[in-house]
Order: sequence, then structure tokens, then C-alpha cells
Amino acid sequence: MNVDLNRADLVIRNVRAYNSCFRTFRDVDVYIKKGKFLYIDRKRAGEIQAEESIDASGLYMIPGLIDIHMHVESSLVTPAAFGAYTVRNGLTTVVAEPHEIANVFGREGIEAMIRSGRDVPCDMYFAIPANVPVTGEQFETSGAAISCKDMLDLKKTDGIICLGEVMNYRQIIQENDSEVARFIAQVHEEDPWYVLEGHCPQLKDAELARYLYLGIGSDHCEHDLEEVRQRFENGMFVQIQDMMMRQEILDFIRENNLYERFSFVTDDTFPDILTQKGHLDYLVRKAVAMGMRPEDAIYSATYTPAIRMRLTDRGLIAPGKIADFLLIDDPAKLNILQTYKRGKKVFDISETEPDQNIYSLGEQFENSVRIERPTEETFKVTIPGFDRRVLVRVMRIWRDTNKVMPTLVEMEVRDGILQWQKSGCALTMVFERHGKNGHIAYGFACGDCLKQGAVASSLSHDSHNLIVMGRNEADMKLAVDALIERQGGIIAVKDGEIKGLLELPVAGIMSNRSVEEAGRQFSAIRKAFDEQGYIHHNNVMNFCLLSLTCVAKLKLTDCGYLDTEMMKIRPLYEEIER
Amino acid sequence: MNVDLNRADLVIRNVRAYNSCFRTFRDVDVYIKKGKFLYIDRKRAGEIQAEESIDASGLYMIPGLIDIHMHVESSLVTPAAFGAYTVRNGLTTVVAEPHEIANVFGREGIEAMIRSGRDVPCDMYFAIPANVPVTGEQFETSGAAISCKDMLDLKKTDGIICLGEVMNYRQIIQENDSEVARFIAQVHEEDPWYVLEGHCPQLKDAELARYLYLGIGSDHCEHDLEEVRQRFENGMFVQIQDMMMRQEILDFIRENNLYERFSFVTDDTFPDILTQKGHLDYLVRKAVAMGMRPEDAIYSATYTPAIRMRLTDRGLIAPGKIADFLLIDDPAKLNILQTYKRGKKVFDISETEPDQNIYSLGEQFENSVRIERPTEETFKVTIPGFDRRVLVRVMRIWRDTNKVMPTLVEMEVRDGILQWQKSGCALTMVFERHGKNGHIAYGFACGDCLKQGAVASSLSHDSHNLIVMGRNEADMKLAVDALIERQGGIIAVKDGEIKGLLELPVAGIMSNRSVEEAGRQFSAIRKAFDEQGYIHHNNVMNFCLLSLTCVAKLKLTDCGYLDTEMMKIRPLYEEIER
Repeated sequence: MNVDLNRADLVIRNVRAYNSCFRTFRDVDVYIKKGKFLYIDRKRAGEIQAEESIDASGLYMIPGLIDIHMHVESSLVTPAAFGAYTVRNGLTTVVAEPHEIANVFGREGIEAMIRSGRDVPCDMYFAIPANVPVTGEQFETSGAAISCKDMLDLKKTDGIICLGEVMNYRQIIQENDSEVARFIAQVHEEDPWYVLEGHCPQLKDAELARYLYLGIGSDHCEHDLEEVRQRFENGMFVQIQDMMMRQEILDFIRENNLYERFSFVTDDTFPDILTQKGHLDYLVRKAVAMGMRPEDAIYSATYTPAIRMRLTDRGLIAPGKIADFLLIDDPAKLNILQTYKRGKKVFDISETEPDQNIYSLGEQFENSVRIERPTEETFKVTIPGFDRRVLVRVMRIWRDTNKVMPTLVEMEVRDGILQWQKSGCALTMVFERHGKNGHIAYGFACGDCLKQGAVASSLSHDSHNLIVMGRNEADMKLAVDALIERQGGIIAVKDGEIKGLLELPVAGIMSNRSVEEAGRQFSAIRKAFDEQGYIHHNNVMNFCLLSLTCVAKLKLTDCGYLDTEMMKIRPLYEEIER
Repeated sequence: MNVDLNRADLVIRNVRAYNSCFRTFRDVDVYIKKGKFLYIDRKRAGEIQAEESIDASGLYMIPGLIDIHMHVESSLVTPAAFGAYTVRNGLTTVVAEPHEIANVFGREGIEAMIRSGRDVPCDMYFAIPANVPVTGEQFETSGAAISCKDMLDLKKTDGIICLGEVMNYRQIIQENDSEVARFIAQVHEEDPWYVLEGHCPQLKDAELARYLYLGIGSDHCEHDLEEVRQRFENGMFVQIQDMMMRQEILDFIRENNLYERFSFVTDDTFPDILTQKGHLDYLVRKAVAMGMRPEDAIYSATYTPAIRMRLTDRGLIAPGKIADFLLIDDPAKLNILQTYKRGKKVFDISETEPDQNIYSLGEQFENSVRIERPTEETFKVTIPGFDRRVLVRVMRIWRDTNKVMPTLVEMEVRDGILQWQKSGCALTMVFERHGKNGHIAYGFACGDCLKQGAVASSLSHDSHNLIVMGRNEADMKLAVDALIERQGGIIAVKDGEIKGLLELPVAGIMSNRSVEEAGRQFSAIRKAFDEQGYIHHNNVMNFCLLSLTCVAKLKLTDCGYLDTEMMKIRPLYEEIER
């Protein structure tokens, strides 16, 4: 109880500290006590005694970075590995939405993520996944579901501070009987100020209004300028991710002085991007390179995200706030020299060492690829009836988009087996892998995808069943066998040889290694995809998204082909009418 | 659960509605459903059907006003009466701090205020009184105290959303063993984001930093520009009340674009001011008259106060927000024509009627002036020992300030009785009135105070003991008798006649009548004070503050004279040394 406010633990002298109210830098001495800022001494009068003194002449101090919309799983590592790495990116607070693991392990998975995030330098808060599974069980088989009751229980869990992105935006504005709609209705009764995060691409005008009427307050999706303008105008907090950093949008923010009403967020950062470009720090650098004042870009990665999440104890360098800060030598370049968390140094650029740790969420999360070993027969596409030609439904892949368009390709049926090998298409199969029903679905892909061998992945949004694509059955079988044996991963196989392998033993979607190691393996797998002719600009992810039912237009889940606009299952083939 | 988002209850067509993001007015149709805004239709496309339609051509719509620092008791009426009246001032949300009643009735009083505020059109939230009593029992006798445990219990009470102003600002930065310091330490553990309101006149530099280090986030006191600048710079939310609306401060806000970081607040509004000038609406009008853009002044009485109090469900006209709004004909004049609360009209300027209601908090709060009837002897100032002259300590009152300076006046003692009547001083007495110890303290006042008859009050901050001041004992006795009989009030007596009386039967500090009636009575009492020569610019309040121990320099409580700077009891007189 007795705190002597005349004494501090640490003083950083002669530093140019960022002031969030005036959005400017000032020459000050900064005193820190018990993990909080005590005094920003502008007169440098030395009224307070400090145990330790650091001279920071020539350096700048900014608040630690705060990322309020992101999925740790997208970096393919555990929260512990993520937090250990991203101190170098200046990340001191995140709000992570663990909906990937929730689709595999449900509440237990979420709780394991929270535990894993507890012992990292970064304060890792979590959002309740709103849509697990994203569709119903008639369309795909997920490993688990999060019910309204689960959400209400999770809301009371230490470390959880908001509802994550509400993705069923078209459904929820028409009907109110989804699990998340029930949750929102109940939360409104007891806590009308609870933070509800949004996801509503394309919604505008009255449709957008209906979505906001539910109390959802933010959006981080890709939009054109008019959509962005409407979001600001209607009181939404706008979260700008990499693909939204377009000149016209940044200009609009500047011209209308909207700095209080948006923040930068990363959403998904693959491990190779993380190691090569950075994290939220990269977005700040990019904004400055695009002409935003460093003082404004920093604001949008520190102060405003904290306010949006009601984390009023951080995000600025001021007395009483948590002493999370970075020392940098140039605000425009944001080259992070040191990171401090609650007044303790957790990163120094001159002292980094390779991270050789093994990160586990616990053994119970490492046997999640529950598939019976396939036989050679498994990879034959059987079509009953007499020999004939049929029109086979095929997913056409384009290099610049994750949208998948449907097409029909004529193929021969002989002895009840589809003869697809010379069709120019790649056989694509989804194996239900949660041990629920053993579904195996068959489909085909064409266009800018695989030309040789086979690729497979147990990371396959959002239900994360095992997906395999190949030009021959033998390589496909080898790929699937290898992933079952390793209990998860992404693999590329050619001519009976493994050409690239990223092991993902944790729930079949995360590595148990460091970010650096996952980044290296991810780069290798990306290269193997390239070499086998998968020429999409983001080939590995494009493959992992072929089951994702909230993207247009034809997708393959373990239940078969799904028309994601009509929300209808489609057959593999049509008979040719003569 | 099933809400049809294609249908609204009400549409206000052709209105110029305020947009809080861009701080501008726009021509729109505004749809309302179940008490919330559903759609602000800029295109006026009529996509949504509404049950009822109002044409508001030529009118402006702004959000309902939000006052986050105020004391209902200062208007000398109950919350129910206050709320019934202030719909005409456009007040739709307040955060009231009931520390006056807390000093009389403690937690029960606070809970009665909350109940009284429940059935009014305005949403009445409450703050936990932080310093009851403001000093210790060695310095004054209050009716009740609020302990750390009380505060923790109150924090869980429905309707309470923050800790009210922490007034022991000098004490709390030196030592941490006050009740409120213990409360803050415990709250930090369980909810580091809980709103803590401040009160720290004069604090600057390292002293201000120490106060902020405790997590206190706002201040509403009177300051010079440098003090205001330091508050903004250190991340405080600044609450601007009437006496802070000075040109240099408003200019500083404009020049530095600090509109996100302050709000207008009323603090204390006497009932005659309320009926003659208005409430928060008056401050907005005044700001505009001083050159602030109406769009900016409105922002600071709607959006920013809501954000400061984390009331993110209101304060702007946007889908999903509570439909509290005002219709006005001129944003600069803020002449409020209609007030809507949750989409329902609660005030129409063309339909007002006099309020004849009797407002009670309950009988248990109406017998609080627990004093034995005084006799004539009670009003004699006895000084033991032989006949002599002594130096009597006197409070010197100046017309422009509530600060009271000490002085010494020579008076005669004859037969053990002080002969003060020809000294030019007024006898001043404080009767402990909570039935605790029967203290009666004697003192004197001189300067710009009473010249004839007697005045008395059971409203006497903060402990609200009964104070009486007079030029003759008979009028003083009559005044005290009358207030005991009526169980509270403020009274002026001259030549054996009551010249003015404001009855305050509710806890001895509030009227049980309407704001209009309390305002009329208050005007009459102010006039009587004037006529009896109390020439202070705010004479009634100056009198009621003569016991207030957090104002400099010499005050009279039921425990006697208190030097409020040294916090030491001083004797009534000093012997003259020869």
C-alpha cells in the first residue's frame, strides 16, 4: 500500500518522448515506477530520485505498439512463440481472435491459447470467436462449435475483452437466430458497452445500418473509399490493414482529420512476412512512406487502438499509464532499438539470439489429424453406372484473387472410374480430420494452381480439414500419409519425394517452433509450390483457403462442393444431355 | 429475439442532423427503432418502412446533452425533480455524484438518490463519493462516512459507473492510507480501467504527476492556462465548468484541436440559475457566444463526455446508438424545441405545465435535523474567568471569493459572557445536527456578510450541520427553531419575522418540491440575504460554505474553528498579553 511517490525505479534521461495529446515529440526525462510512468519531466528539474538512470540522448521514445485485430494462428505459431518474437516489432499489447483453433478444439483450444499467451512479454488479450463454425454442419464438418453459452462463459474468462469479428454479416441482418445473435442480444442486457468487433465487406447504406444497429462497432475488411466514408460517418471505428493502405484512403483520413477514429491492424501475418517485413511496425513504416506524418502514424498504432478496446491504462506516455515503450533512432524509419514492457527491457537489437525453443500447448492438442490411412483405392474417383462422358464441376483459380469461379470440364468415365488425369485439372480432396464422420469429398481445380506432383495441408480454413491436390494419385497418397504421420502440416511432394514440409503439429494448424523456424519452413514450402507450378501470388494460402466458405464462389469442403453465394451443395458432375 | 430490421417505429424526415465524426450537419431522414437509431438515410431513399413519420423541415437534430460531473443536490431538489425539469435543457444523461447526501445519510442516502433517479426521462448514472467525510471526525462531525468497503460495495451497484472526484489530493499524493486510497489500490487489481474522477486545484508538475500516477483521469477545477495545458499534456480529460470558460482557455483548445479531450460539465447549479439561465445547454450557448463553432461546442456536451464515461452506446446520432436527441431551430442559440429520450418525446416547448408534484426520497430521510431546542442561554458566548478584554478570532468575508481569511478582534468579557454585539461582527454558530454528539461551536464573521437579523441553514457543506449567523440572539433563536421545526432549510429572520425561507426537508439539504418552486424560494432567500446586508456576490452559498474544510483558510465546523491549511483546530479567542 505505501508507495513513496518521491522515488522512481528508473529514469530515461534526455529522450525525445512522444506526447499523444499534442501528437508531437518533446525533450524530457521520463520516470518509471513499478511498471508505470510516474513523471514526464519537461523541465528536467530532477525533483524525483530514481534508482537507475539511462541516458537516451539522440533517441526517441514512443509507446509500445498495440494491435487490436489479429489472429496469432495466421503466423502458424503458438501465442508463446509469437510473443517471444514480436518484442522486436515493438508489440506490447495485442487482442488476438483465436477462431482457427476454436474450429479444431473449441473452448479448450481457446483456453490453451490464453494460457500460452500468458507468459510472454506482450500483454495478450483475446476476443471471443463469433462464428465457429462459420457455416452449419450441413456444409462442412468442424472439430468444434462455439455456442451462445460458450460465448457467455468465455466473456467471463480472464484475458478476454471483446467479441471478435461477427462474420455472418448477411445472415445476421436478416434473421436473429444464430448463436452469435443470441449472444449479442443477451450481452446488450447486461453490458451495453461491451466491445463487439465487425467484419462486413461490401455492406453499405441501409444494410450497413442494420448491421450497426446490432451494436457492432468496427470493421477491418477491404473497402472502397465510399464504403470507408460510410463507416466513419456512421460512427464505426475503422481498422486499416495492409491491403487497405491505399493513397486515397490515407488522404481521406488526413483531409478529414479522422485520426481519432481508426487504427492500424495486421489481421493475418504469415511467418515469412513477419520475419521479412515485420508486423504492426511494418504498417507504421508503410504509412509514413505513403506520406503520413510519423506522429500521426504512431498515434494510430498506440493511442487509438487502446481507446477502441477500452484499455485506458496504456497507449500513451503519461503519468499512471503502463510503461510500455520503445526506443528508436528515427520516427520515420521506426527502427526499434529497445522494447520495454512495464518498465522492463524485453528486447535489445544488439542482444538477439536465435530462438531454439519448442513451444507446445500441451500433448492433448498434438493428435488432431484423425484420419484412417487411405489406400490407393481412396484416390480413385468412382462414378457409378456405364462408361460415358460427364461434365465435371471444377474450381477455376486466378492468380490475383482468392475468389474461385466454377466451371465444367468434360471427362470420361471408364469401369466406374473417372479418367481425369489428362484433363488439365488437378484432383482435389478434402478428408474430414476431426474423427467425426470420415467424410471424403472429391473435386477438381484448374487455372493458376498445381501443375506437378501433389500438395496437402491440414491448415484449411475455417474447419481445417485435410485438403490435398494432385496431378497423380501416388504423390497425393504420399502427401496425405506424411501429414497423418506428422499429425499436421503443409507439404509438397513430387515424383515420390517430399519437396517441402512445414510441420504443424499443434492442432494441425500451428508449428511448435519459433517464428524464425516457421518462417524458414514457410518460405521453403512457398518455393516448392512455385516450382510445382502453383503460380498464384499467394499460393500456399490460396490453397489453404479452397475450403473457406465465406469467400465466393465455389469451394470444396468435406461435405462436397459448396456454392458459397447460394449456400447450396453442388454435385461433382452433371450428366451430358444428348 | 426476432427483430425485423426492415421496419422502424419512427422516422424524422428532412432534418439537418448532427454528424459527430465530421462535426457537421447533414440533410437526412433519421429512422428509429426500439429506442435506438436504426438508419441515418442520407439519400432519403425510403428503403425502410416506419410506423410514424414526422416532418422536421427547417429543424436541426443534435444528440441529447450529457453532463458527466455534477451534483444533483446543488440544485436543492431530488433526482426525480431534477430529471423532470431538465428535459427542457436537453439533458438526457448525467453522472451525478451524491456526496452531499452521503455526508448526511451515507450509503442509504446514496441508494435513495439512485432510486429517485430511476424514473426520470434522463438516464441518471452515479459516481461513488470518494471523500465522505472530506476530513476526519476530529475536525467535523458528519452524519455518515463512506469506507473503502462501502465504496467496493457501491461499485457493484447498478447505476454506479465511476469513482467521483478524489478531493484529498494533497493527502493522497503523500500517504496512501485514506479510505479512497485503499479503494483505488484494490480497484486497480480487479479492473485497471475503472473510471476515477479527479479534483486537484493548483497541482502542477511532479505533484500533478503523483496524483495521476494513482490512475485518476480527469479534473473539473478552476485553473490557469498553464495548469490546463499540463492536464492535457499529461493525458487527463479536462472538464470545463462555467468559471473555466475563459477566452484564453477556449482559444488554447481551438488552436491545439483538443476537442476530443474535454467536455463541458456543470458541477453545481443552483435552482435559480437553472430556471433563469439553464444547465449544460447554457454552457454550450455561452461557448458559442465566446466564439466556439456550434458544431464543436455541441460535440463537447455529447460525444466526448460519453466516451470519457465509457458510455459508448450514446452521444452520437448513428445506427445502434440510443436515440436521445433534441430538435432545435438554430444550433448557435440552442433553443430546445423538443427532447427525445430513447426515441420517445419527453419534452415539447409548446406543452410545458407547472410542476406541482411533491418529491420525497422516503420518510426516513425527512427527520434529519436532530438538535435539542436551544434556549436563550445557548446563544450566549461564555468565556470563563474574570472580566477582561480578549482577542476573538473572526472569519473575514470578501464579496468576490469563498476563501475566508482569519483576523482577530478585541472584545469585552463581562460576568463570563462575551460582549460581541457592538463589535461589528456577526455571531456564527454551528450545531451538530446528526444526533451524534450535540456539539455547538461558536465563532464570528465580519466583512461582506450579514448586517441585520439572522440567517441559518441546514445545508452547510460538506457535513451539513446547522449553521446560524446573526446580529442578535433573538433572531438567531427564531431562525434555529424554525429550521428544527421544519427539519431543514435556509432561513432569513429580521426583527422577529421570517423574511425568507427555503424549506429543505429532504436530508436537510433538498427541497421536496419542483425545480421551479425551489428556484423561486431560492431567489427569495437570496433577496432576503441581500436586504440584510450580506453583500457577497453569491451570498447564500458563501454562507453555506463557511464550514467547508477543503477551502482556505479559517472555517467554523461543529468542532470549532479550523485552520484548513494547517488542518488544526484553533481556539475562539486569545488572551491579550500585557
